[in-house]
Amino acid sequence: MTSTGFSRGRVGTLCRSGNDRHLAAAPGAVSRQEPDFQSAPVSPPRGGRVSAVEKWLFERLLRRLGNPAIRVVLWDGQQLATTDAPPVAVVRIGDRSALLGLLFNPALGFGDAYSQGRIAVEGDLLEFLRAVGDGLWSAATSNKTLRTRVAEWLSRLHGNTIGRSRRNVHHHYDITEAFYRLWLDEQLVYTGAYFADPELTLEEAQRAKMDYVCRKLWLRPGERVVEAGFGWGALARHMARHYGVRVDAYNLSHEQVLYARRRAEAEGLDSLVTFIEDDYRNIAGKFDVFVSVGMLEHVGRGHYRRLGEVIDRCLKPAGRGLVHSIGRDQSAAIDPWIQRRIFPGAYPPTLKEMMDVFQPRSFSVLDVENLRLHYAKTLEHWLNRYEANKQRVADMFDEPFVRMWRLYLAGSVVAFATGTLQLFQIVFTRPGANDIPWSRAWLYEKP
Amino acid sequence: MTSTGFSRGRVGTLCRSGNDRHLAAAPGAVSRQEPDFQSAPVSPPRGGRVSAVEKWLFERLLRRLGNPAIRVVLWDGQQLATTDAPPVAVVRIGDRSALLGLLFNPALGFGDAYSQGRIAVEGDLLEFLRAVGDGLWSAATSNKTLRTRVAEWLSRLHGNTIGRSRRNVHHHYDITEAFYRLWLDEQLVYTGAYFADPELTLEEAQRAKMDYVCRKLWLRPGERVVEAGFGWGALARHMARHYGVRVDAYNLSHEQVLYARRRAEAEGLDSLVTFIEDDYRNIAGKFDVFVSVGMLEHVGRGHYRRLGEVIDRCLKPAGRGLVHSIGRDQSAAIDPWIQRRIFPGAYPPTLKEMMDVFQPRSFSVLDVENLRLHYAKTLEHWLNRYEANKQRVADMFDEPFVRMWRLYLAGSVVAFATGTLQLFQIVFTRPGANDIPWSRAWLYEKP
Repeated sequence: MTSTGFSRGRVGTLCRSGNDRHLAAAPGAVSRQEPDFQSAPVSPPRGGRVSAVEKWLFERLLRRLGNPAIRVVLWDGQQLATTDAPPVAVVRIGDRSALLGLLFNPALGFGDAYSQGRIAVEGDLLEFLRAVGDGLWSAATSNKTLRTRVAEWLSRLHGNTIGRSRRNVHHHYDITEAFYRLWLDEQLVYTGAYFADPELTLEEAQRAKMDYVCRKLWLRPGERVVEAGFGWGALARHMARHYGVRVDAYNLSHEQVLYARRRAEAEGLDSLVTFIEDDYRNIAGKFDVFVSVGMLEHVGRGHYRRLGEVIDRCLKPAGRGLVHSIGRDQSAAIDPWIQRRIFPGAYPPTLKEMMDVFQPRSFSVLDVENLRLHYAKTLEHWLNRYEANKQRVADMFDEPFVRMWRLYLAGSVVAFATGTLQLFQIVFTRPGANDIPWSRAWLYEKP
Repeated sequence: MTSTGFSRGRVGTLCRSGNDRHLAAAPGAVSRQEPDFQSAPVSPPRGGRVSAVEKWLFERLLRRLGNPAIRVVLWDGQQLATTDAPPVAVVRIGDRSALLGLLFNPALGFGDAYSQGRIAVEGDLLEFLRAVGDGLWSAATSNKTLRTRVAEWLSRLHGNTIGRSRRNVHHHYDITEAFYRLWLDEQLVYTGAYFADPELTLEEAQRAKMDYVCRKLWLRPGERVVEAGFGWGALARHMARHYGVRVDAYNLSHEQVLYARRRAEAEGLDSLVTFIEDDYRNIAGKFDVFVSVGMLEHVGRGHYRRLGEVIDRCLKPAGRGLVHSIGRDQSAAIDPWIQRRIFPGAYPPTLKEMMDVFQPRSFSVLDVENLRLHYAKTLEHWLNRYEANKQRVADMFDEPFVRMWRLYLAGSVVAFATGTLQLFQIVFTRPGANDIPWSRAWLYEKP
């Protein structure tokens, strides 16, 4: 009775669990064996011979990683193989400081040394990250309590280095859209797409995601929508163009605001969409709908209740909303390299933690959907386009930047494909609202 | 683009929010003005005249209830009208002790006096409960902190009166299925139905619910399923018959176990379904699927983590599960009358609280759906059938029993229709499981 419908709906070629460790390439996705995935050659060996203590400590680290099927080549030519299984990748460690960095803080040490070209991965980077990814971070500590403490310590350390944080923030957000244009879709949507059909192109899947969000919110022409964190403004423009709503959209990034305004004007949507350069806490006015896609993970654990107050303040009595955010199954600090180098202040909450937005203001949660595998597929598309344009990235920045972003994108593919990270869409209303869809069936009706 | 699909999917005639205060009757549902809904005449007046203090205290209570549009007739003939609006019901308070009970503990006092016939409601009981329902309970205390304290105090008091609890449990669960047969569907499903189409009959909607649960779990022939809390066994039999799975089902009620076994045998399903008279904590074996419909609200707030451990222990590595439970938007104690007279030990958790089942064992939540309005509609059907059979209920028990169950069913309709209570279905897997449906679309494909 169910088999037909299900088998068509099942996960396609992207991600398989269990024994099938291969992330089989979807059509149009990255081919794993092409030389693109080999890093630039590491810098010339230096540092003399590897000491017995260094080798012993490193072997201990590999054991903690569960002896992944990799071959390691150290800077003096010594080789280590963790198992008899054929290695998924060869890892070259170019100097002593790279090794010491790995021993001291595996995830951060690996990320930095890989970016700087002092560690290189030959073979399949995704397979390599899949084999060691989670372990790399958890290997820093031997049990969860300690791990939590280290996470807190790192978080405090990070909180103190404001200068570094600011530099990192700018590193991510002040990059011109010309960079993102190299690997995002044409509308520059920098959040997970929805592959209603797994064979959709990235452009189609991003449009499908925006439609899916609009349907989940049952937007009606003439309604007023507020969007918290609008990126380059694609969703706001989509809602105005296809659903006839008026949108006030908030974002702190000056460059994104200017881009979004230019584009809305060029498309004749500027009378319907207002892009505001301000913090979500300063949202003003009353709206039928609140929507936020990809902001909650940057709001910070301590501010969820405040976000709920803002929604409560700006939502009309019959209002409803949707929050789309990266999340987790269990509380954990973000990978320290990502935290330090890519997304300072980011924290993917668990569903339980997310409820701190809704429960204190008595919002009624109607629908939660986990779209983890859709984000993994989105990231595969991004990585594929990124690799195809890596020479232009190198011209725009430099080789360490190319490697850093490759590692970030590849690590994210693996994190969503393996369940280290989740993607939640949550639909909510004010308590007791009965003007809601009777079932979810209509979300899936063909237009 | 969305309007067609949505308007068809929208809440039908059942529940309207906002200004439209009427629970318009669905076809086949209870007609609100028929004499069925008038209670039996109250016992003869006694207790002399109402004192000025009593009247002042009672008027204060009515103000706390927000001056609902009701007319009150006291035992000495005095009348109170709270507003100039036409009253939705006339409430007769038959004696002083009924009044004092109301003043001391409004919800409990009302429930008991209504059951005993010392308070009568003439007119529309649902409208009356809608007007005062939530207020009746919250009126006991003037602020939330105090209200929480009273809830805790009641809960402790309740915990101490074990004899009364036991009597109440028996009151609910030792009632022969002949009673439930008077107002449940033919399969005796005592949990919320799923009205895939609002016009379905109760029988059809219960089958639709069971199919919906099976689809959400993507059951495959030959799989092993464990069900915690099986009622009269309808879901277990449905899964075995239509999805070809083998089911071990647990329940503590001796009478329900015997009934379920007899019926499975009569239907030739006893080789596929094993009904076990035991606690969910004693589930033994390894299963592909865990399912529990309508048990979590009776498990008790302190045992969610333990339930998660049980699921973790009995689920195979690629296992998944579904938990279906009454819930709330915000933490609150259950109505003290329901707690005392109907469901001792019941506690409808918030989604955040429910996560204590899943998060500690790192289960990955895939899907949460709030089916509150479907439960309101289910309860309308139950109430309708109950009223149609009230003479048989009276013959089986007595008039106070008839009134008590009417109030419980009517109060539950209103609680789900107004959002005092929610109904959540949660689907989960083990962490990182990728053998999951690619999207939810197939849930809604026509067979």
